Order: sequence, then structure tokens, then C-alpha cells
Amino acid sequence: MSLFLTLFQDTPSEAAQVLEQVNGDMGMLWMLIAGILVFLMQAGFTLVESGMTRSKNAVNIAMKNLLDICVGSITFWLVGYSLMYGDTSNGWFFWSGLFQGEGADLFFQTMFAATTATIVSGAIAGRTKYTTYIIFSLVMTAIIYPISGGWEWNGGWLNDTDGIMPAEFIDFAGSSIVHSVGGWAALVAAFMVGPRIGKYVDGKVLPIPGHNQILATLGVFILWFGWFGFNGGSQLAWGGADATGGSTVVLITNLAAAAGGLGALITTWIWYGKPNLGQTLNGCLAGLVSITAGCGNMTAGGAVLAGLIGGIIVVFSIEFIEKKLKIDDAIGAASVHGVAGAWGTLVIGLWGVDGDTAIGLLNGGGAAQLGAQAIGVLAYAVWAVALSFIVLGILKATMGLRVTKEVEIEGLDISEHGSIAYPGKRVREFDTDK
Amino acid sequence: MSLFLTLFQDTPSEAAQVLEQVNGDMGMLWMLIAGILVFLMQAGFTLVESGMTRSKNAVNIAMKNLLDICVGSITFWLVGYSLMYGDTSNGWFFWSGLFQGEGADLFFQTMFAATTATIVSGAIAGRTKYTTYIIFSLVMTAIIYPISGGWEWNGGWLNDTDGIMPAEFIDFAGSSIVHSVGGWAALVAAFMVGPRIGKYVDGKVLPIPGHNQILATLGVFILWFGWFGFNGGSQLAWGGADATGGSTVVLITNLAAAAGGLGALITTWIWYGKPNLGQTLNGCLAGLVSITAGCGNMTAGGAVLAGLIGGIIVVFSIEFIEKKLKIDDAIGAASVHGVAGAWGTLVIGLWGVDGDTAIGLLNGGGAAQLGAQAIGVLAYAVWAVALSFIVLGILKATMGLRVTKEVEIEGLDISEHGSIAYPGKRVREFDTDK
Amino acid sequence: MSLFLTLFQDTPSEAAQVLEQVNGDMGMLWMLIAGILVFLMQAGFTLVESGMTRSKNAVNIAMKNLLDICVGSITFWLVGYSLMYGDTSNGWFFWSGLFQGEGADLFFQTMFAATTATIVSGAIAGRTKYTTYIIFSLVMTAIIYPISGGWEWNGGWLNDTDGIMPAEFIDFAGSSIVHSVGGWAALVAAFMVGPRIGKYVDGKVLPIPGHNQILATLGVFILWFGWFGFNGGSQLAWGGADATGGSTVVLITNLAAAAGGLGALITTWIWYGKPNLGQTLNGCLAGLVSITAGCGNMTAGGAVLAGLIGGIIVVFSIEFIEKKLKIDDAIGAASVHGVAGAWGTLVIGLWGVDGDTAIGLLNGGGAAQLGAQAIGVLAYAVWAVALSFIVLGILKATMGLRVTKEVEIEGLDISEHGSIAYPGKRVREFDTDK
Repeated sequence: MSLFLTLFQDTPSEAAQVLEQVNGDMGMLWMLIAGILVFLMQAGFTLVESGMTRSKNAVNIAMKNLLDICVGSITFWLVGYSLMYGDTSNGWFFWSGLFQGEGADLFFQTMFAATTATIVSGAIAGRTKYTTYIIFSLVMTAIIYPISGGWEWNGGWLNDTDGIMPAEFIDFAGSSIVHSVGGWAALVAAFMVGPRIGKYVDGKVLPIPGHNQILATLGVFILWFGWFGFNGGSQLAWGGADATGGSTVVLITNLAAAAGGLGALITTWIWYGKPNLGQTLNGCLAGLVSITAGCGNMTAGGAVLAGLIGGIIVVFSIEFIEKKLKIDDAIGAASVHGVAGAWGTLVIGLWGVDGDTAIGLLNGGGAAQLGAQAIGVLAYAVWAVALSFIVLGILKATMGLRVTKEVEIEGLDISEHGSIAYPGKRVREFDTDK
Repeated sequence: MSLFLTLFQDTPSEAAQVLEQVNGDMGMLWMLIAGILVFLMQAGFTLVESGMTRSKNAVNIAMKNLLDICVGSITFWLVGYSLMYGDTSNGWFFWSGLFQGEGADLFFQTMFAATTATIVSGAIAGRTKYTTYIIFSLVMTAIIYPISGGWEWNGGWLNDTDGIMPAEFIDFAGSSIVHSVGGWAALVAAFMVGPRIGKYVDGKVLPIPGHNQILATLGVFILWFGWFGFNGGSQLAWGGADATGGSTVVLITNLAAAAGGLGALITTWIWYGKPNLGQTLNGCLAGLVSITAGCGNMTAGGAVLAGLIGGIIVVFSIEFIEKKLKIDDAIGAASVHGVAGAWGTLVIGLWGVDGDTAIGLLNGGGAAQLGAQAIGVLAYAVWAVALSFIVLGILKATMGLRVTKEVEIEGLDISEHGSIAYPGKRVREFDTDK
Repeated sequence: MSLFLTLFQDTPSEAAQVLEQVNGDMGMLWMLIAGILVFLMQAGFTLVESGMTRSKNAVNIAMKNLLDICVGSITFWLVGYSLMYGDTSNGWFFWSGLFQGEGADLFFQTMFAATTATIVSGAIAGRTKYTTYIIFSLVMTAIIYPISGGWEWNGGWLNDTDGIMPAEFIDFAGSSIVHSVGGWAALVAAFMVGPRIGKYVDGKVLPIPGHNQILATLGVFILWFGWFGFNGGSQLAWGGADATGGSTVVLITNLAAAAGGLGALITTWIWYGKPNLGQTLNGCLAGLVSITAGCGNMTAGGAVLAGLIGGIIVVFSIEFIEKKLKIDDAIGAASVHGVAGAWGTLVIGLWGVDGDTAIGLLNGGGAAQLGAQAIGVLAYAVWAVALSFIVLGILKATMGLRVTKEVEIEGLDISEHGSIAYPGKRVREFDTDK
């Protein structure tokens, strides 16, 4: 490697110029392919969300996920990219004019915006007006996500150690920026919309099982697959140290996902007496979320531990939100993305590394990074919760958030979209709750 | 960039040779990966076609799609590549001998041939003999598609401005060459085979809903995913201007798909009173088809507009073919691929660009390109319609196109393939029409 | 090309160093992407295995496939990689200490280990204890696969022509090492666990159809898609001859799969009177397995022939194992992976090539390679069968292999995992055998 460093001194040699050009082109190729992988996560979310909820609302879920990518692609190109990566800034807000961004970079970033929005759709399944969802999704990809994204990824205040930050905040691929923001918004939305009819009856918490666990399983495999692009592509480059760096990111992403799945599998086996599929799927996702911030700052062993704990946490978090907070998050999105996202952000401050240097409290790197991570976690939580309350509050006061009781019982598919997911079957045969 | 141009003068330097070698290798990598993405579109077609039709014919659809890729891979290697990319030519027909093509190039081109064939299978679902379909699919990948493909992609008469062409025809990734050819063949086939029993009864047009809209949604996401390879890979290279070019192709492909989905969603909301899933899915696909010709000759804004209009057109086109022409295209393939393909080809002549130069009528580029595009659209339509009539006419006169009434009512799966898609259920419970 | 060779003489020029660096980086990119494609094969296996068996055991199958990737990722990183690619060796066993391997290489190899384990899960569907499966899967990825993998891919005794080997054994991507080992283990496991209730009744062999052939079809498309990474990535490099080599591998992998599908389709048409979907799917997979060993040592024509014969063999092999051996392999895994894997390994000795040199008996290359291939096939069969008998024998004597009769009839999903795949439907409506 040291030989190559000499290539860049003084007047770069032709060979050095070639290397620089090719590295740029390889980086673009990797980001493009990574963005394509992230795109498919929309299909994964659709399958997980529809599989884990009832068939009478499956068309509505498909329509929400289609909307996220359709609206998100347009709005992020129109204003979102500029609000996130604009040049003019005070460290909190960014802007460069309309229609900024281009090529592989804009494509990759667009997929992240759409992902943030789509996290919300599952939590509020089965009772939310489609019009309400459209506006919330639009605000999410156009405003809520991009502004807070710039705080970190565009060198905003979370990177500025001259102020309150004890160290630069680290969130490699978005445990906080994407997943926690989406997860906390999902929690607020589920709270504001209220529980589904039949969820909380006479003080009892009733399960509302989904309709297709095989589709949900396929969805998780697709999400896991796409996550290699989500995390690996966040290297934003290829060639030399970026090639080994990006490869390591993908490797430890897989290890954390595997550990998260095992964490949840074992937890449910002990806790429920049987290894549970739905929670194991959530555990895999929680493992992925848990390594999304730290996948550039974690040893393989540290990643396994982060994912394992993420997979354990998610089981209890889902129970806590459902049974103690009595918020009806239909698929556990707040736990998978919000809680595991916060955990994945904090864990860098516990046993993270920066190259060979320890930066975590528990591996002897001091408390500064943990402090920075905690500030970041808090900032994204406050931002997402506050903005979601404001936007949904306005929507509630004006157009209303929720469909009527009759529509909810019949299923949103018929009244909101005029068709059902499985037209060959009578609805009566298919749903548990009718 | 200008520095690199000097590298290639006189005796190329070692560095220049390295750059050329690496660019070739990166281009091969991108084409290979793009071809792999296009392959998965076969799965997308299978899901869309089976999900949008009845379960009693789902096995038959799977068998048709499998056949397309199996037969297409062999025939395109055997003769198709040579008929399309052969050296000896009069501008209309090409040939270089059997077994031409190799490596990533043959692989990528094979996937395009298989796609063209598979477009037909959905339109004629539910009443066509499997043997008939085999022969038609074989002729499609071996003869119909490759010959007309050479007109444009092998420098044939559509690129020859010495004759009737006012400008070189532009079809970057195949709005006309792949999609319109497949779409017009689908239209002819649906007409020749005739409508399904129960479609047109006593002068009324009855809906025959599909059996699984979630599978159809997954199918569209997979098609969209594969389309990034379909369009992006058609750059046929990577490195330097090809890297930014290929990235831009993928970006605007996504924008057009998103706009197409929104176009159909809004249109159905206004037209039917509710945002419709099936048509929104068709809208996404129409958006993709609408940008397939122009993805190398369109601004981002132009792509959004092309896709949006494509998504609107497809809704009305499906209604028109179903209700006015009374042709029973079971999944709207003629509209999605044929009509949107023609639109996507023509739109280059309306607001296309060639680098920074306007070439469209509406952006001040004159009428020459629009004329060239119109000639191409017409040529591919005439070719596909004529050849389809001839081949299907011969098949009708000899072996027959259609299964018996009894077989059709029972479903093709049992009589043609001896099994049903969902053996765990009695057929009676599953189908609407029995 | 010859120009580049001069670059590497004496003191390598800067340009030569750049080329070497970039080739390494491109190779890493391709292996990483290939590994990501192979990962998705786990989703393919889940769909094929659950689709081809009954719905009452679908959750159990999903849990087994999740376990394979979760456990396999951890154990292969912990010990497997070292047992396979360790430095210290006697040609039979390898070791370098715990936690070996890194980056794209470990990631890619991990996916192969997980694939080997997952082949077994389908064969023993519907009656095997989950605890038993966990231990077997763990032993598979930690010990059985890695040790025998080193024999070939780490320069072990199968590469050593000083001993009994008449030539170096060739298994490019693992027809024997991955697929036969998995397939023979599946055969032994199916035999040891015994047939499902209702399979062999009063001397009759009864079919137990799966519950969703569309999911199975999607699964095969996903496996085919992932296989391009499985075989293509086994080039282990990109750039120059590796770029054309890797591309050719992918091309002929596709040709063999297509031929295998046609082989089975035609065979069932002749044999059963109708072209059968399930067997055509198996034929595609058999075609893929048949070219996995030889994809670097086969002409395109040779690949088509190898795949075609593989697709024919698999139909008769499934019938033979089911009806003559009376071993209840629920999805035909032993035939698809074991028998076709042996065929794919042997065929190199029949009409394989090494560059332009014939190495097969039938194309004039002599018998040495065929001898080497036969020794390898035998060695992997003996190893997999012996180890599987030992491990499963111990498990049978201690914890038992099989669930109770009541649990099997009810379905494993409820008793082993406490939930069903399709909770919206009553189980009674869904299963054929209740």
C-alpha cells in the first residue's frame, strides 16, 4: 500500500491518475448495485408487513409500500436531497435549491429515504386512512428524514466537536438516522391512531395473528439481502482500503443478523417454551438494525454480541410496548427499528473501535464516544417524536387519522381500494376475526 | 477528463493500456450483474401473471415462464444471437453461423430474448394449449425478436440515415424492440385465441379477478428491481462517461417507474373513485416501459413526465382493449408493453436530449427525431403483428390454439400438467368461477 | 494481453502495480456480490421446501432454514473456516486457530457452508425433531463440510497427484463438495428418520403433495438467480482472463439449468403423459448442480448436454429412491443434490476441457481425469454417509430423531413452534391429509 501513496505526491503520475479514476468508477458501480439491493427492501417490507397482519388489509399495505417508493423517489429528488446534502447550512438545516443530486449517489440516498417512510406503514396497519398515510409518507421523505440526516451525514452539528459533542457522532448506515427515526415515528403514529378493534378488550391484550408467515419469512430474507447493500453501500466507495472496508461491513452485517436471529430464537424458547418464528424473524431484523450504525466501527466479535443482544431486546421490547404501554404496533416496528436502532447506536460507545483504536467505555476507550452516541440517539428521538406528533396532530384535527369502525371490521382493502388480496376466496373463510 | 484523452494518443502509455483493460473488465462485470438482475424478471413475470389470473391456471403459467427461459436460453445461443448480431447483413437480416456469442454479452442478450417471449404468456392465460405456446415461444426467441433486434442494435436499416430515416432511431434498452414486439404479439395472440369463457356474456364485459394480489405486487417489485439491470446494463460498458451514464440510466429509470405508479394511482382514484392496486402495479410497469427507450436520452424531469403519462395511458388502454376492442388480454400485457412501449419510443422525439442537445419537437430539437421514432414504432408493430398472425395462423390451422371448453372450465393445470398449484385445498373452495 | 505480461517483469512499473491493485479490488467486489447472491439461496430453499411439503409443517421449515444461516454464519466463522482453509495440514485435516477468515472471502465461503446444511432440511421435513435438526445442522457447518472441503479447495489430498490420484480432482464450485455432501447426508437422514406417516401404506407408495407450487417455482427462480453467484463467484477473482472466465461460468451455468429444465419437462411428458411442474423445477436445479463442478471446464455444448442428462436422471432417481429404496425424501433432495452432484462431477471426466485441451474420456482426453473424478465422488460419498450415520446414530440413541405420531399428524408447526403458517385459515381446510 505504501507504494501507492507515493503515486499521489507532487504531479500525479499517469498511473496515479488511472488509479484515482478507476477507484471512482468502481465506487460508483458498488453504490449503484448497493442502491439496487436496497430498493428490493421495499418488497421485503411489503411481505413482512402484509404477512404479519390480516389478509383483509393486505392490499392496503401493498398500496402503502408502493406509495412510499413512488412518492419518496419524486420528493427526495425534488427537495429531500437538497435539504439533506445542501451546501448552505447552519449545522441544522441545509439547502442548495430544488432538484439537486444525480446519478448513483442520488439513487442510493433516495432508497434510504423511502426506507425510513416505509417503516411506519406496518405499525399502523389495519385502521389508518390511506389519505392520511400519503401525506405523512410525503412529509417523512421530503422533510423529517432529510433535515435530520444532514445533521450527521452532511457534516452537521453532530459532527461538530466544538460545541456540546464530546466526540463526533457515529452512525455509519443509519441505525438512528433511518431506523430510529422511522421507528419512533411508527410508535407515535401507532399511539395517535389508537389500537385496532379487538386488540385490547376488557383489560385483556389479545393477539391478532398475521395471515401468512411464509411470506413474512421471505420478506425477512429479502430485507437481509437488501441490507448488505444498505450497510455495505454506505462505505460510499470501493478500491484499496474501501474495498476491504466495504467487504468487512457486509461480513459483520451478516454475523450480527445471524446472532440477532439466534438471540430471539433462544429467548422465545426459554420465555414462551417454544422457538417462535415471528420473533426469530424480528430478531434477525433487530440484529441487522443493531449493526447498522456500527458496521464500520466494530470487530466481528463485537458485531455478534451487538446483534445477539439486539435480538434479545426486541422480544421484550415488543412485549413491553404491546402489554405495558398498550400501544398497538401491529408488526413491532417501533421495537425492531426504534429500540434496536437506539441500541445499535449506543453500542459503538460501549465496545466500538476506530481502526485499531478502542473508542468504547467497556473496551477501554473512555466515555466520550458513548456520550456522543447518547446525544445523537436522544436528538433523533426528540426530532422524530416531535415532528410526528405535530404532523399527525394536524392531520387528526383536519382530515382524521382513522377509518370508521365499519370499514375497519370489513377490512381496508374493500373500502379504501375496492378489491381484496385473494379474490378467489370468500373473505369469510380467510380471516380469523370475522 | 481531458488529461485522460492524452493517454490514448500515438503509442498508448502503459497507464493508458491499464485503463483500457480495466474499463473493459468493469464493463463486463456490470453487464454480467445486469444480466443476472434481468434473469430474475422471469420470476417477476411468473408472479404477476399467476397472481393476476385464477389459481386453476397457475401451474400452467409457471410452466410457460419456465419454458421461456429454458427454450430461450438454448435457441438464442443456437441461432438467435447470430440472427441479431451477425456480421453478414443487408440491413434487414443478419447471420454469422450457428452458436455465436459468448460470455457476459451472450448472457445479457439471452435474457432480453427470454423477456420478449414471456410478455405473451400472461395475455393468453387460461385457454391456450401448452404445445401451441411452446412453438410460439420458440419462434419468438429464435426468429421474431432477433431479426428485428438487429435492425437497430446491430446497426441495421433503422440506423441508416442514407435511406428513409430522417434521423437514427433511438431505442436504448428496448421499449420497442423488446416490449412493443412482445406486447403486439400478445395482442395478436389474445385476439387469435379468443376470450376466456365468461369474459364476454350477453354483451356484458365481466371482470375475472386474479387470485393473489400480494404475489402480483411482489412480482412487480422484482420486475422493477430487474429493470435496473435491463436499462442500466444496456449502457454495455462501465468506466468514465459510461459509469456516470449507466448510473443516470438507473436513476431516471426509477423516477419514471415511480411517476408511472403515481400516474395510475391518481387516475384510478379519479376514474374509479378509489386508488386501485392492480392498475397501480400496471402503472409502475408502464412507467418502466416508457423510459426503456429513452433512458439514455432524457433529463430526470423528462423521465418523470414520460413515466407519469405512461402510467395514465395504461389505465385507459387496458379499458379500451378490454371493453371497446373486446380482446381478452388477461393481464393487460398489450397495454403495459405494447402501448407504453410505443409511447416510450415516441417520447424521445417529443422532449428527448442527446447530451446537452435537444432532439425533441417540444424542446426545440425539430421533428426529425420524432419522425425516426415514429418509423421505428410502426416498423416494429407491423413486424410483430404480421409475424404473430402468420405463426399463430399456421398453428391454428394445424394443431389448434385453444383447449376444449371442458379443460378451460376445469382449469389448465389439471388437464395440461396433471397437478394443481395449491394441492392442500380443494379446487372448489379456491376459484371464483366454479 | 501479451503487452500486460511485460508489465510484471523485474521491477513492476507503476502502471503494473495499479493493474494488480485494481484487479484485486474488482475480484473482491465480484466475490462480495456473488456471496450476496448466494445468501438469497436460503430464501429459495425455504420456498422450495415449504412449497413442496404440507402447510402444517411450513413454519418448521422456515425455522430450519433460518437456523442454517444463523448457526452456519457463526460456526463457520468460529471454527469452520479454519478447518477448511487452515495452514497446518496433513492433506486431510486443516487448522489455523479459531476465528480465521475475513472480509469478502469469509463471507462468500460462509454462504457455501450454510447451503450445504440447508440441503438436508427438506428431505426430512414433517417428522424430525427441531432439537435434533439444530445439532445436525451445527455439526454440518462446523465439521462435516469444512473438513472435506479442504481436501479439494485448500490443496488437500485430492489435489495431490503423487499418491493415488491419477489427476487433480476438479470441482470448481462444489457439485461434490457442497451438493453431494448435502445430498448424501439428506439421504442418510431421510433413511434414519424413517418415512412420514401415510407415505408407505399396505405396500403402496402414496404421494404427499406439497401445498404451494407457485412458492416452489419462485424458490427455484431465486435459487437459479443465486447460483450465478455460487458458480460465477467461485472464479474467486475478476480482471483479464478471470473476467472472461467468470462470465463464461455464468453463461454456461444458465445453459445447463435451461437444458436440465427441458430434460425433465420432456421426460415427464413422455413418462407421465404430461409435462410436470414439480419435476421440471427439480430438473432446473439438477441442471444447475450438474454444471457446478464443471463450469470452468466445459464448453457451452458440453454444459448443455451435462445439464440435459442431469435433468433426465433426476426424474428417475426420485422415482427410484421413493419407490424402490422406499426412502421418503420429501422433496427429492438426495436426487437433486446427491445424484446430480455425482453426475456433474463425473461428467468432467467424460467431456471436460482444460482451456483448449480435452481431458475427458469421450473427447479424447484419456481416462485419468475420469478416474480422479470417480475417486472424488466416492470419497465425498463415503465421508458424508459415514459421518451422517455416526452423528444421527448418536442423536437417535440419545435424544431421538423423530417427533411423536400425534405431533406428526397435527403438524410440527403447532407442537414445535406454537404457531401455524397461515393463521387466518383453519388447519382443517388447508391440509390434504387430515
